[in-house]
Amino acid sequence: MNLRTPGPTPIPDSVAAALSQPMINHRGPEFADLLHEVTTELQTAFQTRNDLFLLTSSGTGGLEAAVVNTFSPGDRLLAISIGNFGERFATIAERFGCDVQVLAFPYGEAADPQAVAQRLAADPTIKGVLLTHNETSTGVTNDLEALATVVRAAGPLLVVDGVSSAGSLEIKTDEWGIDLLVSASQKGWMVPPGIAMISVSPRAWEANATAKLPRYYWDLALAKKEAARGQTPWTPGITVLYGFREALRLMRAEGFDAVYAKHRRIGAYTRAAVKSLGLRLVPVDERRASDTVTAFYLPDGTNEKAFLEQLRTQHDVVLAGGQGELAGKIARIGHMGMVEEADIDDVTQAIRQTLAAPATAAP
Amino acid sequence: MNLRTPGPTPIPDSVAAALSQPMINHRGPEFADLLHEVTTELQTAFQTRNDLFLLTSSGTGGLEAAVVNTFSPGDRLLAISIGNFGERFATIAERFGCDVQVLAFPYGEAADPQAVAQRLAADPTIKGVLLTHNETSTGVTNDLEALATVVRAAGPLLVVDGVSSAGSLEIKTDEWGIDLLVSASQKGWMVPPGIAMISVSPRAWEANATAKLPRYYWDLALAKKEAARGQTPWTPGITVLYGFREALRLMRAEGFDAVYAKHRRIGAYTRAAVKSLGLRLVPVDERRASDTVTAFYLPDGTNEKAFLEQLRTQHDVVLAGGQGELAGKIARIGHMGMVEEADIDDVTQAIRQTLAAPATAAP
Repeated sequence: MNLRTPGPTPIPDSVAAALSQPMINHRGPEFADLLHEVTTELQTAFQTRNDLFLLTSSGTGGLEAAVVNTFSPGDRLLAISIGNFGERFATIAERFGCDVQVLAFPYGEAADPQAVAQRLAADPTIKGVLLTHNETSTGVTNDLEALATVVRAAGPLLVVDGVSSAGSLEIKTDEWGIDLLVSASQKGWMVPPGIAMISVSPRAWEANATAKLPRYYWDLALAKKEAARGQTPWTPGITVLYGFREALRLMRAEGFDAVYAKHRRIGAYTRAAVKSLGLRLVPVDERRASDTVTAFYLPDGTNEKAFLEQLRTQHDVVLAGGQGELAGKIARIGHMGMVEEADIDDVTQAIRQTLAAPATAAP
Repeated sequence: MNLRTPGPTPIPDSVAAALSQPMINHRGPEFADLLHEVTTELQTAFQTRNDLFLLTSSGTGGLEAAVVNTFSPGDRLLAISIGNFGERFATIAERFGCDVQVLAFPYGEAADPQAVAQRLAADPTIKGVLLTHNETSTGVTNDLEALATVVRAAGPLLVVDGVSSAGSLEIKTDEWGIDLLVSASQKGWMVPPGIAMISVSPRAWEANATAKLPRYYWDLALAKKEAARGQTPWTPGITVLYGFREALRLMRAEGFDAVYAKHRRIGAYTRAAVKSLGLRLVPVDERRASDTVTAFYLPDGTNEKAFLEQLRTQHDVVLAGGQGELAGKIARIGHMGMVEEADIDDVTQAIRQTLAAPATAAP
């Protein structure tokens, strides 16, 4: 199967093999070593000296952890949304009783740093900004450095969803001043789902000390205390961490700069391939198109479900469909982690043949 | 390594091998089949026709999910505590703003159904009861059937922590009227950590409809909606579910009655072995001693950490120490899931030799 969804991503053989290692005591020295290695390697990948924690959850759990550890009911937040995952981030904070102001840009566009700066200047009561780095639903990557600069200048805490970017697209957490950065194992990290990662800046810790949103499972102050003795507060997802250790060794061997360069190369290659089929990209400005996921509009009259099903059953190619406003209208190709040009060629050929000879009936 | 902590537990070879299977699309038909098989087999194991959900989290996450889906701020709850995990369950509900009344029994004792009945009769404002079935910190198993009977007669919702019992000790969820039952993969299920399971009765759904505690990641109403199309709301821990499917096939092949009988047999065997060493069990009434974990007091003057470290380094036997009030005073032997008499013999011999010749210095 050519699994080309934007996560879970294919797993290298050595990572798959690592998953089968015997269980260990999560309160013992073997686990402390495992936790230490994965944590410190991820700090390197995040380019941060901040604390970093591993949560047993999906990426959405990591986003919830970021919110509940940092804010109080009624806190005014600015959620910058450019698609489905931006909306999700806003919804999480709303559900917990924050006063969430949404600054939404149309699907397909990136957030405009100047518009963000104006909004922040107009409302000094905003305590935090929720920002999606790479919007998986539209295949658009925000200019995180530029956005972080305006948020930093205005003062609020910056909370970044890097679920589908960190590890594939370079993020300079400390240099850009990101207070909380969240990612998840099943994206460019080449690891199965089950672990979310979150880094916490000193400013975020200050906010944490007075943050009143209720939390227990996600309590990062407790995680910090337990980390000091090589443990996690609750039983951790040991198997996925075995895979993570191996995947990080592979990434270190390749070099993170090489990993980022590969994603830039494959991103451009995929967009060129899609355009060569006469298909239109969802990103309106290709300079902001994502190098981890490519979203394109299906030709008029194409049934999204039937198209994806035909790709899967006739070509063994698995893509994702549209989400939110774009449900039913687009397809998305994931190209993060373990991916080469040949994988994209296979996808391109499958799309070409499927569009040329669509199945007669929808499934 | 003879891993004899009360979770994570050793993994059978075929379960370990299953973990390495390739990644799949969590929105595709292969995942729907996986989710369906694991869910329906677990419903059989839980002896329930209630909805059952798989959460990507540890067991503690499952307990938090039970609370936030069922109650509102200020709701009066009765937390029945016989040890560290009973205290944890109460703390979760307190953190979320419930009015938690704790009915605590001394460490080593089981909860007295009559005392519970009296407490419930005296306070008709109690909306829910939080109950630990098997208290992992003391090795005591509550009489769940008797306790459920008095709770059912009084009317409140019954929320049960079956993390270290379900799958090893028989629980008749529907017959006994348990509204929410929580367990976790890394216990008697012989699966790595990373998945919590929760069953939800019609009465619990009624409560859910008006429950106001904030929730997003744990939103079971959303999980129910997604389950109807073979999906989970967030990216699930696919690898652990691969292992779960295989482990449930093994358990089905052995037969759940045989699994329960084995735990009763091994439990009695372990207690006899511990007593033969002249050691005192933590449970004051052996009839309520747990068949999944045996806790015993260390002889006076024994350093718990040094004792456990010597077992590990000299005998490759890994036990757990004390928690809560019992920290530093006891050791605990896990015997759930994949365990045979020979494993216990190995533990017994290691304990005997270690107590006879303790290391000269604490580590």
